Amino acid sequence: MGIKELMDTSKLEWISSEGPDNDIIISSRVRLARNLKDVPFPHLLDSSKAKEIVKQVCDAFSTSPFLASNSSIYFMNELSPIERTMLVELHLISPDLASSKNGAVIIKPNETISIMINEEDHIRIQTVFPGLQLKQAYDLASKVDDILEENLDFAFNEKIGYLTSCPTNVGTGLRASLMMHLPLLTQTEQISRIFSTISQLGLVVRGLFGEGTQAKGNLYQISNQITLGKSEEDIIENLIGVAQQVIKNERKMRESLTGEIRLRLEDRILRSYGILTNAKMISSEEAMELISDVRLGVYMGIIKDLKPSELNQLFITTGPAYIQQKSGKELSPMERDLSRAEFIKSKLMK
Amino acid sequence: MGIKELMDTSKLEWISSEGPDNDIIISSRVRLARNLKDVPFPHLLDSSKAKEIVKQVCDAFSTSPFLASNSSIYFMNELSPIERTMLVELHLISPDLASSKNGAVIIKPNETISIMINEEDHIRIQTVFPGLQLKQAYDLASKVDDILEENLDFAFNEKIGYLTSCPTNVGTGLRASLMMHLPLLTQTEQISRIFSTISQLGLVVRGLFGEGTQAKGNLYQISNQITLGKSEEDIIENLIGVAQQVIKNERKMRESLTGEIRLRLEDRILRSYGILTNAKMISSEEAMELISDVRLGVYMGIIKDLKPSELNQLFITTGPAYIQQKSGKELSPMERDLSRAEFIKSKLMK
Repeated sequence: MGIKELMDTSKLEWISSEGPDNDIIISSRVRLARNLKDVPFPHLLDSSKAKEIVKQVCDAFSTSPFLASNSSIYFMNELSPIERTMLVELHLISPDLASSKNGAVIIKPNETISIMINEEDHIRIQTVFPGLQLKQAYDLASKVDDILEENLDFAFNEKIGYLTSCPTNVGTGLRASLMMHLPLLTQTEQISRIFSTISQLGLVVRGLFGEGTQAKGNLYQISNQITLGKSEEDIIENLIGVAQQVIKNERKMRESLTGEIRLRLEDRILRSYGILTNAKMISSEEAMELISDVRLGVYMGIIKDLKPSELNQLFITTGPAYIQQKSGKELSPMERDLSRAEFIKSKLMK
Repeated sequence: MGIKELMDTSKLEWISSEGPDNDIIISSRVRLARNLKDVPFPHLLDSSKAKEIVKQVCDAFSTSPFLASNSSIYFMNELSPIERTMLVELHLISPDLASSKNGAVIIKPNETISIMINEEDHIRIQTVFPGLQLKQAYDLASKVDDILEENLDFAFNEKIGYLTSCPTNVGTGLRASLMMHLPLLTQTEQISRIFSTISQLGLVVRGLFGEGTQAKGNLYQISNQITLGKSEEDIIENLIGVAQQVIKNERKMRESLTGEIRLRLEDRILRSYGILTNAKMISSEEAMELISDVRLGVYMGIIKDLKPSELNQLFITTGPAYIQQKSGKELSPMERDLSRAEFIKSKLMK
């Protein structure tokens, strides 16, 4: 599958279909970090050795008809900067992989499996599901892990678990994360209190594109901090338990709004819709904020005739790289803003 | 005609139809101040004497089949405060008349003739035409003046001209004024330079509702300052000449916009349209600004399918009194904002 076909987000299962608790949980993601035994970590590898790793992983991957069907491999050094950034925007690779010369990724878009090779670790298996489906995401990642492990020798210590390049991933190598849409907890400033509680439970909150990124569009990623000394099942159970509390809080806020506060929120949501469907130019940051409002409006019944999954797709297709890739050329920031507004309008008014 | 029927602005000729140079000149207005000979000015009259004046004017008015057909008289003390303010918003009476206990007004809506009785002067004849039609407005006012003069004895001095309550109106008693829509001269801040030139030419610039009011929605009233020592024709010629200069400047600005500046203006106009057609609540001040943008957009070809006269009608029907009169009850400011948004939406989306 060419990079162009990946742009058809209706084929990315995790955002084109709806899952449980989708009003608040946009997606459930699981990532397993694995390394090959007796091979230096990626940042210590020269180019030829790194290529060998890619080949080994591909060979292991190809042994499984399930994995091999409808999947493609993309080599970072063969992609343009815009294409690499677009894969980041689509949450198919990490920013780190995008900037790695020896990196590659195998993508199976329908189930949204992506296997990053030569990122921080030799192998990072990632699965994404719509809504709150962490267990399902873990089961699938685990299945991929098992298939690869049949053919590859992973660096594993009986006492510690899987060895990883960064000590924070040692043990299970598991990072489970939920992308949550929390507009009302953000607006009412309850979010900082909730996040400070969450961090005491061994969880960490990040912005949309992972570590060090800002929460735009009221989107937050909550994930486990600890990978060692706990079973995969416990890590996932813990995250689900916390998420259910957050879901309950956000929902209560949405339902409890009355009187003028409710009217002012409806007004803001409808204005955001009016701007998205009429503006001539929109920056990506503004787009995120407006889409956040409209998504909330869809779930609150204020905006009809739009499916939440359409808003989810908009959320990840308004980034600078996606917009440029779509136009087939580099664009100035103003040209991007024009093109983005046109694209959003076409999606919402169809 | 009841006060309710006046609310149908499609029957107010001056805003429901289009006139010359309507892209910039919304309306041309002429007002003639007249007083009855040997009768104290209105502020010195007791109630019974004031009533006599009303009767005298009505009698004079009724002698003319032209004036009498389709016209109605409204007594200020019989109208509710909301009704009086609505007549001000519709530019049919002045704020001064609205607050005068002994005041009355005869309105002939089709030709938009209104005769205020017992405002600052005994009689103020007012005519309004759409677009730049000052001469036509003057001719009609003059015709009304002639009809009244056949039956009334006006205070007139051979040397000075018509005598008026305030010395600034002595002589011709004429105030000719143009309501101009100058969004680009306002935005580019050329307006203050232009207005300072204008004031040196014996003209004065005011906001939408006359003296001491602010220019909302980029609407300005330009009128003659001097009523004495010049003929009516000269006063009107002078105002038209100046207006044509202002028109030329505003049009040049509209036509000369290119590149990013043009795109940013288009963006603002389209967003304003998006907000007007989607918002849940809108204040009257915000409405004026947004309608100003959309009106500009209609004339610049950026917004299709709307007639300028529809925007003109919106301009004068978003005031607090009109909105309350429409709902048939007093509303809180928030209720007005809700009702106004609903009303604007219904007008633009029809």
